[in-house]
Amino acid sequence: MKATIFGGKGKIEFGERPDPKIQEPTDAIVRVVRAKERKMTESNELSENLIFPKGEKVVSENFIGGVWLEMLVDKDDTFNCPMYNVTFEPGARNSWHTHPGGQILLVTSGRGYYQEKGKPARVIQTGNVIKIYPDVDHWHGAAVDSQLSHIGITTNPQKGDAVWLEPVSEEEYKSL
Amino acid sequence: MKATIFGGKGKIEFGERPDPKIQEPTDAIVRVVRAKERKMTESNELSENLIFPKGEKVVSENFIGGVWLEMLVDKDDTFNCPMYNVTFEPGARNSWHTHPGGQILLVTSGRGYYQEKGKPARVIQTGNVIKIYPDVDHWHGAAVDSQLSHIGITTNPQKGDAVWLEPVSEEEYKSL
Repeated sequence: MKATIFGGKGKIEFGERPDPKIQEPTDAIVRVVRAKERKMTESNELSENLIFPKGEKVVSENFIGGVWLEMLVDKDDTFNCPMYNVTFEPGARNSWHTHPGGQILLVTSGRGYYQEKGKPARVIQTGNVIKIYPDVDHWHGAAVDSQLSHIGITTNPQKGDAVWLEPVSEEEYKSL
Repeated sequence: MKATIFGGKGKIEFGERPDPKIQEPTDAIVRVVRAKERKMTESNELSENLIFPKGEKVVSENFIGGVWLEMLVDKDDTFNCPMYNVTFEPGARNSWHTHPGGQILLVTSGRGYYQEKGKPARVIQTGNVIKIYPDVDHWHGAAVDSQLSHIGITTNPQKGDAVWLEPVSEEEYKSL
């Protein structure tokens, strides 16, 4: 039996079935994706070495600066594990917010900040794993001179969506 | 307020608190880790470009060949989201097995196989996202000529641990 090859090098292809509820409901969904971008950022020579796709630019009042989002695993009742790749351009960040069921971040590229309300910001970078407890007010984003890419995992998604609060002001951000 | 820096380039450091139940229970655990290895595999010149630590070599009857494991997020009742980095050397693979609550794989490096019982094996490689449905009999591992690293996420961990079945024989593996 020869293995089926889905997607060659540098190619983006989706192996998802048209309707997983009808055809072979126990088939794994192998989502075959490769990042197209592999370039140097202008500001700091840190390689923007994306493993997962950068996705689409986010239009939202909950972000300042350029932010890209690609859903890797949608919210559903089978896996209960929404996952997404998020890329912040230098200087970009999200607003203060909380997750009722918590969140985990896996930093895959670049450097940035993670901060909880009332505490010093922490520098986060490639290889960091960040466990954000339920209902903790926090924000994350890129450094001034580096992009930041992380995979986000919404834990206990049945407890509800993120609660968005006020933006991280220029004053707060620039004081880091 | 200046940001606190945890861990410089190439350094492995753990930011975990001694007892999260007693001290500042809402602090995020920023686990600051960086992979030490960044080398070329001998067999195929694919870069073993590890983002997360390779961890310890696994001693288990459920694996054939060299397999390394690093827990990124332990099983607990807060996040319900165990995560681990698994690296298979060329030719290494796990036995057939099932997950009562499913599993998601994020391939971060290399190339290998994913196969479900009675179906052709599928080639998986860097950037692939694999959603494995609950109770589906399957195995995964490296190609003959490439290592494979993936992050594994046990979904719905409250439904139980993996159920291990028979090994993938040399005959099965070599026929791929």
